[in-house]
Amino acid sequence: MLQQARIRNSDFRSKIMSAEDAAALISDGSTIGMSGFTGSGYPKAVPLALADRIRAEHARGNPFRVKIWTGASTGPELDGALAEADGIEFRLPYNSDPVARQRINDGRMDYVDMHLSQVAPMAWQGFLGRLDTAVIEIAGITPEGDLIPSSSVGNNKTWLDIAERIILEVNDWQSPLLDGMHDIYYGTALPPNRVPIPLIRPDDRIGQPHFRVDPAKVAAVVATDAPDRNAPFSPPGATAEAIAGHILEFLTWEARRAGLPPSLLPLQSGVGNVPNAVMAGLIDTPFEQMTAFTEVIQDGMLDMIEAGTLRVASATAFSLSPEKAQYFNDNAARFRDRLILRPQEISNNPELVRRLGCIAMNCLIEADIYGNVNSTRIMGSRVQNGIGGSGDFARNGYLSIFMTPSTAKGGAISAIVPQCSHVDHIGQDVQVLVTEQGLADLRGLSPRQKAEAIVARCAHPAYRPMLEDYMARAARLSHGQYAPSLPSEALSWHQRFMETGSMMP
Amino acid sequence: MLQQARIRNSDFRSKIMSAEDAAALISDGSTIGMSGFTGSGYPKAVPLALADRIRAEHARGNPFRVKIWTGASTGPELDGALAEADGIEFRLPYNSDPVARQRINDGRMDYVDMHLSQVAPMAWQGFLGRLDTAVIEIAGITPEGDLIPSSSVGNNKTWLDIAERIILEVNDWQSPLLDGMHDIYYGTALPPNRVPIPLIRPDDRIGQPHFRVDPAKVAAVVATDAPDRNAPFSPPGATAEAIAGHILEFLTWEARRAGLPPSLLPLQSGVGNVPNAVMAGLIDTPFEQMTAFTEVIQDGMLDMIEAGTLRVASATAFSLSPEKAQYFNDNAARFRDRLILRPQEISNNPELVRRLGCIAMNCLIEADIYGNVNSTRIMGSRVQNGIGGSGDFARNGYLSIFMTPSTAKGGAISAIVPQCSHVDHIGQDVQVLVTEQGLADLRGLSPRQKAEAIVARCAHPAYRPMLEDYMARAARLSHGQYAPSLPSEALSWHQRFMETGSMMP
Ligand SMILES: CC(C)(COP(=O)(O)OP(=O)(O)OC[C@H]1O[C@@H](n2cnc3c(N)ncnc32)[C@H](O)[C@@H]1OP(=O)(O)O)[C@@H](O)C(=O)NCCC(=O)NCCS
Ligand SMILES: CC(C)(COP(=O)(O)OP(=O)(O)OC[C@H]1O[C@@H](n2cnc3c(N)ncnc32)[C@H](O)[C@@H]1OP(=O)(O)O)[C@@H](O)C(=O)NCCC(=O)NCCS
Repeated sequence: MLQQARIRNSDFRSKIMSAEDAAALISDGSTIGMSGFTGSGYPKAVPLALADRIRAEHARGNPFRVKIWTGASTGPELDGALAEADGIEFRLPYNSDPVARQRINDGRMDYVDMHLSQVAPMAWQGFLGRLDTAVIEIAGITPEGDLIPSSSVGNNKTWLDIAERIILEVNDWQSPLLDGMHDIYYGTALPPNRVPIPLIRPDDRIGQPHFRVDPAKVAAVVATDAPDRNAPFSPPGATAEAIAGHILEFLTWEARRAGLPPSLLPLQSGVGNVPNAVMAGLIDTPFEQMTAFTEVIQDGMLDMIEAGTLRVASATAFSLSPEKAQYFNDNAARFRDRLILRPQEISNNPELVRRLGCIAMNCLIEADIYGNVNSTRIMGSRVQNGIGGSGDFARNGYLSIFMTPSTAKGGAISAIVPQCSHVDHIGQDVQVLVTEQGLADLRGLSPRQKAEAIVARCAHPAYRPMLEDYMARAARLSHGQYAPSLPSEALSWHQRFMETGSMMP
Repeated sequence: MLQQARIRNSDFRSKIMSAEDAAALISDGSTIGMSGFTGSGYPKAVPLALADRIRAEHARGNPFRVKIWTGASTGPELDGALAEADGIEFRLPYNSDPVARQRINDGRMDYVDMHLSQVAPMAWQGFLGRLDTAVIEIAGITPEGDLIPSSSVGNNKTWLDIAERIILEVNDWQSPLLDGMHDIYYGTALPPNRVPIPLIRPDDRIGQPHFRVDPAKVAAVVATDAPDRNAPFSPPGATAEAIAGHILEFLTWEARRAGLPPSLLPLQSGVGNVPNAVMAGLIDTPFEQMTAFTEVIQDGMLDMIEAGTLRVASATAFSLSPEKAQYFNDNAARFRDRLILRPQEISNNPELVRRLGCIAMNCLIEADIYGNVNSTRIMGSRVQNGIGGSGDFARNGYLSIFMTPSTAKGGAISAIVPQCSHVDHIGQDVQVLVTEQGLADLRGLSPRQKAEAIVARCAHPAYRPMLEDYMARAARLSHGQYAPSLPSEALSWHQRFMETGSMMP
């Protein structure tokens, strides 16, 4: 048996069982801490078996729903399958699964959207309640009974520490060369015992390669052999290329203005095609020996490593397209010294993001003329994904850049609106705003100055006159002239979209 | 001459001149970094002389306006006088002066509202522009030519370091016993050279008592003898007492639930009567040997020290009522070992706030049913003061509590609204919301659960049915049911207030 090679401790070997038997250990109403961060390192068998079990119980007329905590989003075999079975009553801290999203937006699932760096400490604080079971994918078990982390670390250290019962999935698909790439820091504590995190460079290693686990808590070990599932890569279109172009030009200018080193400062990059286009573009700039201190490792970063532009990337998870994931698995030896995976309380830690001075680059849903950003709620009421790590990085980075196409839904929606229908990032935390139209450097500007820059540089020309008209009338009619606004109209574009399908009158 | 006793270095003594002569060194269009944090430690003579000069130039038909950077708010002799003379074209990072506020809200002065911990590093980053002149109040000059800080530290270290020219005001009114109370940390640097801040307890001293200064940059030394001017203390009324009562009950419960030490965790307290009432109430709880790691030292903290409840307070400034300031000056020996004043980039540092696990307690203008908080903009467009340190503490504290009376303007305004007209603190950073009506513990709740708790526990009974009605209709008509909202109505309470003078229909 292949798994025997990965499970090199006999105590753990004696606990091998089927996913169905493991899922049978979980009962209605449990709180389950799962591994998983974007589509990597999530358990691939037990959640499916649990979904079957839930469906069977529901068919018998019995209630069966669970509370799910993870690192961030996971894959269809976890969030998708369990939501489909109507098996999730509560979910934290991030979700991007379309089936689960629909249930949340239908009001049938409670969802708590959290800063990703805060999940582990808040779980320790105890107010989220008890964690009954942890279901964690790993890449193997050492002879000493330590766990080799998989392609994401997320909150696994914490779930293993605080859960009452543990189910492990050992995934044979994961590269054995993952072993040694992780840096699991065990120095965290709650106040008043918290101490400085001794990391001063993105490539510092401050922990150990493996998770500790209390073997008495391990109730099941399940063998799997299934790929991670991230979104396929689509080549960046003209809009993404234009946004990337503005950002690269700005970074080049800013590096000269501020006297930044040739390696720039550690990059943080949100997921998606636009950030990937930025990464691709960085290969052709004069920057060299760059580093990334970020949440996830994307396709573009592997390209940068191969091009010699990126020296090292620190993150909490891979987030590779299926092709790139296979490529990594086939060529892991070439990358393993340049990649470090850490718990998300470290990868996203505000103390470290500020110390290192990350250049934060994230996407948004809408921004308003005063530079407030909505990253999470469509029309203010429907959640898209969640705030993720964007707050951790945007507030604490050396530079905080937000980007978006200037319109959505084929032009029916302006990404620049009079007032955001929901705010995730306040003006103070949004320093640079970029669309394919242009870039607005908002640093040191007052609200009215920001509005002028954003409308002139970032708004789509089809919406610019409407924004100018709003600003002109607000300048006459507003209660105050610090950040002129018309509450009776500020959200009317959203209302119009909901009524007519377009923000255009 | 008394000042001679305070100015114990002959090089500096040779630069003594009148405030008028010093003000003559400042020219139209300059950027000036002033000392001052709340009503303490701001220069009291040169700004007045500068205001005279500006008025004279204006009378001659000449333009004369300056850009003012400070620690936070200052006193009437600075912001008030200069704004009155129409002498300020640009102001950062915080203002609470009524005259300056009016100019900002009339659109005649640009104002940039910043996280107070970020001002110094951003000044170093350089995008705010060059600092021409620093005008800094100090308590004295040592024989070695170092500067003894005054009753606030704020950004003085940074202004002294980066300004091209320095004007010092030596204020004889300040207690000589201030000397030794400050902890000026010179270990900051911009990335990539930033290192961990070696502070792990609120009472750790990591710096030196005095500011360094390049004597070649000191152009003038002005002698003054004038008191700090903070707001007078008004005894807490029934509303403040009720809010404080809810918070004290909650802290007692939370300390037991979470197993916090008898000294609790370091307190951060916003300014105002309500936080003062909380401090007063803490004297009668079982907590002991408490600490404060906060922005300003208020009346209530001195009382706590005298009662033996508070062991030590770390802050960046005093913010005492005139009576209490006099009392401190008369009894400084009794307090000086228990108080530490630091630069605001340290007092408010997110790294430290998170490490120490501060209990953050701040006031707000309005909160919405989803727990977003507006601390700064009345009706979304008029600035009240600014975000100050509230973002530094609320996002990073162990607990983040926000408080407000449930109504304003004699009931014409509900502090709990369907949607905030502006957001400073997102739901993730608002864990506990308190009014005189009650307290809502929002930790771990989904948006809809938060709305139920906030409306039931915090809203004023006169507005509760209106909020329930909004929620019920949003639950039917909203685009999504994650955080149900009706954009056409969400800001209508503000609109109604502006039209009719009341949010009540
Ligand atoms: C903001 C975010 C949703 C953008 O992601 P993306 O993949 O680039 O977004 P898309 O352009 O595909 O838009 C997603 C959907 O929102 C819609 N949308 C985009 N802008 C919109 C707007 N202003 N109004 C309404 N809908 C909008 C799109 O049409 C699309 O809808 P569809 O799924 O029906 O096609 C994503 O970056 C996110 O979740 N961010 C928050 C977390 C984060 O920043 N993480 C990284 C930090 S480490
Ligand atoms: C929020 C804040 C303004 C409250 O301060 P306060 O002194 O308790 O406030 P008050 O109740 O006196 O209200 C101030 C004014 O706002 C008005 N107001 C209060 N709530 C209001 C509301 N919901 N809508 C409109 N106006 C409102 C009051 O009527 C008062 O108006 P007035 O000056 O015309 O009388 C103040 O705490 C602040 O500036 N906070 C931000 C900075 C901060 O938190 N610093 C501490 C962190 S270290």
